[in-house]
Amino acid sequence: MSENYDRVDAGKLTAFAAEALEKLGVPADDAMITARMLVACDLRAVESHGVAHLRMFYASGIRSGFINVDPSTTITNQASSTAVMDGDRGLGFVVGYRAMNEAMRRATETGAGFVAVRNSTHFGAAAYYAMMALEHDMIGIAMTSSLPGVAAPGSAVPAVGTNPLAVAVPAGDRPPFVLDMATSTVAGGKLEIARRKEATEIPSGWLVDREGNPVTDLRGRTGSSGGMLAPLGGVPETGAYKGFGLALVVEILSALLSGSVGGLLQRTAPEALGNYDGHWFGAFRIDGFLPVADFKKAMDGMLNALEALPTVPGVERVTIPGLYEAPIVEEALARGIPLHPKVINDLKLLAEELGIGYDL
Amino acid sequence: MSENYDRVDAGKLTAFAAEALEKLGVPADDAMITARMLVACDLRAVESHGVAHLRMFYASGIRSGFINVDPSTTITNQASSTAVMDGDRGLGFVVGYRAMNEAMRRATETGAGFVAVRNSTHFGAAAYYAMMALEHDMIGIAMTSSLPGVAAPGSAVPAVGTNPLAVAVPAGDRPPFVLDMATSTVAGGKLEIARRKEATEIPSGWLVDREGNPVTDLRGRTGSSGGMLAPLGGVPETGAYKGFGLALVVEILSALLSGSVGGLLQRTAPEALGNYDGHWFGAFRIDGFLPVADFKKAMDGMLNALEALPTVPGVERVTIPGLYEAPIVEEALARGIPLHPKVINDLKLLAEELGIGYDL
Repeated sequence: MSENYDRVDAGKLTAFAAEALEKLGVPADDAMITARMLVACDLRAVESHGVAHLRMFYASGIRSGFINVDPSTTITNQASSTAVMDGDRGLGFVVGYRAMNEAMRRATETGAGFVAVRNSTHFGAAAYYAMMALEHDMIGIAMTSSLPGVAAPGSAVPAVGTNPLAVAVPAGDRPPFVLDMATSTVAGGKLEIARRKEATEIPSGWLVDREGNPVTDLRGRTGSSGGMLAPLGGVPETGAYKGFGLALVVEILSALLSGSVGGLLQRTAPEALGNYDGHWFGAFRIDGFLPVADFKKAMDGMLNALEALPTVPGVERVTIPGLYEAPIVEEALARGIPLHPKVINDLKLLAEELGIGYDL
Repeated sequence: MSENYDRVDAGKLTAFAAEALEKLGVPADDAMITARMLVACDLRAVESHGVAHLRMFYASGIRSGFINVDPSTTITNQASSTAVMDGDRGLGFVVGYRAMNEAMRRATETGAGFVAVRNSTHFGAAAYYAMMALEHDMIGIAMTSSLPGVAAPGSAVPAVGTNPLAVAVPAGDRPPFVLDMATSTVAGGKLEIARRKEATEIPSGWLVDREGNPVTDLRGRTGSSGGMLAPLGGVPETGAYKGFGLALVVEILSALLSGSVGGLLQRTAPEALGNYDGHWFGAFRIDGFLPVADFKKAMDGMLNALEALPTVPGVERVTIPGLYEAPIVEEALARGIPLHPKVINDLKLLAEELGIGYDL
C-alpha cells in the first residue's frame, strides 16, 4: 500500500455505494447487493474491481441507458440441473447474484447446478459468486465472457476476451481455496498499473504485437499500437494454446451456451447483437460426493502439506490461491480499506453529482 | 513424421492391443475398450499416450499386480447428478470408460452429471473421455490427478502433478472443439522428446530448478538435477500462480472429492495410501440450456470467425484446439498410423513375451 492511500471504513463505504446506486435508480435490495460485492473486492485488495469503477463504469453505464437498473431476469430452457438466464441488460452484479443463487438452488436438489447467462453487463470480480457457495458447503464456479482484447496464437488482432474464471472450495480449519484468474497472462488491470507507474519494461509474455512478437518495451506503445494481451502461456512454445483454449472454454460456456454468438461476432456486429456479457455459474454440493467433514479434513491436509514444502531462497512458504487474502481482509476490516486518492476524489465527485452526502 | 517411421493399420493395431491385453487377463470387452482408446491416441498423433506405453506401462503394471485386471468398480455417496466411483485399482481406461458413461447417464436425467473416481490407475489421454460426450450432443469434461512432478511457485520440490484436463464441445458442420492440456507449461512427454532429440536448449518456462530459476540449458541435467516442470505461466510474473491454481482445481476435484488425500500426501505415505490416481468426469446436455441446433450453429459461427481473423506473417490461419486433428486422423485411417521404430520393436517383444502373433 502506497503512503498516500487513505483508509476508509468498510461499512461506511458499503452504505455510500448503496446510496449512490439507489439514487441512480437501482432498487434498494439490488443496490445493497452490488455495494457489498464492490466493497468485497476492495477488502481483498482487488482494487481494479471495487469502488474505483463505481462512477466511471457503473454509474455512467446506468446514466447512458446501457445498464437496465431494474431488469426482469428470466429463466428458460431448463433441465433440473441446468438453465439459461436472460439478464435483461441488468447490472451484472444483480444478474450474477440471482443466477448463482439459482445454480445453488438446483445443486441443493440434484447435487450440481449450472446457469448460463446472456444479456448481462460487467459483473465485477468472478470470485465473489464462486465464494457464495462456501457457506453452503458447496464448490462454486463463476466465469464470464468479455469483448476481445486477447490475441489468439498467430492472430494479428484480438480474438477472445480476458475471460476470467473463479473456483472456490471450502476447507476446514484453513481459509477456503479461491482461484480467480483471467485466462490471459495478465488482466488488463495489471498492465494499467504498469503504465500508471510509468514502467518502460514489462516481462515477455504479457503482450504481443501485430507481427506475433512479444512486446517488452512499453515506450511509445499506447492505444492501438499498444500491443494485445497474450493468452496465459504467452507464446506457443510456452503454452499459449492452453491459455487460448481455456479462454474459448469460458466463451463457449458463458456466451454460446447462453444463446449469444460470442464476443468476436458481437464486436463485428454490435448494432444487431449488442455488446452484452455472458456469464456461467456452477455449484457442486460436496455431500453429493463425500461426507463434508471428510472432504474438509482432506482439504486442510493438502493445504498444510503444500505450505510445509521446502522453498527456494527468499520464499518463506508456498502461497496458495485465496489463502493469502484472509489476513488482508482482516486488516482492512479492522483498520479500514486503503483507497487511492484518485478513487477518493472520484467518490466525492459522484456524491456531488448525485446530491448525496460524503462522509467516509 | 520422421522418415523412418513405419505405418501400421489402425484396425490391426487395435486387434493386436486387445489380444495382448486379453492374454494378460483383461476381460475381452475391457481389453477392446482399452485397445480402442490407445489407438485413438495414435490416430491423433498423440504418441505419448498410445500403444508406445502398452508394454512398459500397462502390461508391466498388470504383471506386477499394481493394476487389477478385473476391477469391481462401485458407486457410492450419490446425489442424482453426482457420484463417487471406487476404481478397485483397475486399468484406468476401463474405470474411466465406466465412470464417463455413468456421468452421461446422470446428465441424461438431470442435464448435468459428474463422477469423481478414486483408486484408479493411468487412464491415458483425457480427451478420449471428454469426446465420448460428443455423439450424445453433450459437452464432456475429463481430468486426472497424478503424482507430483510440477513445482509450485517458490517450492524447491514438486508440489502437484501435471494434472491434465480436457473439454470437448460438439459443433455443427465443423469438427468438435477439443482442448486437452496438462496444467504445466509442457507435459513430461514434450521434455522427453527434447531429450531424445538431444536438444541442449529449451524455452524458458518449461523447467525450474530447486533455486526457483528457469532452466534453459539441458546439458548435464538428468534425474534429480534435471529440474522440475513449471506450472503453466512458467514463473510468477508471467502467471505461474494460474497454472498452479488450475492444477489444484484438478487435484481437488479428482483426488480429494473422490476420497483420496491427493498426490502430495500419497507420495509421502505410499505404504498407507497407495499411489493410485483420481479422475473426474463431467457431462452437460446441451439441450438442458439451448436447442442443440442453435448451439451448434453458434459454435460453427465462432470457429469460422476465429479462422477468418487476420494473422501474423508466417501463420496461415488461427489454429483452434481439436480442429487441426481431424485431417491427421483421416490420413492415419487411410494410410496407416506412423509408429516410431522403437515402438514397433516393443510391440514385437510384447508379442513374443505373451506368445501371440505379430502381423502389423
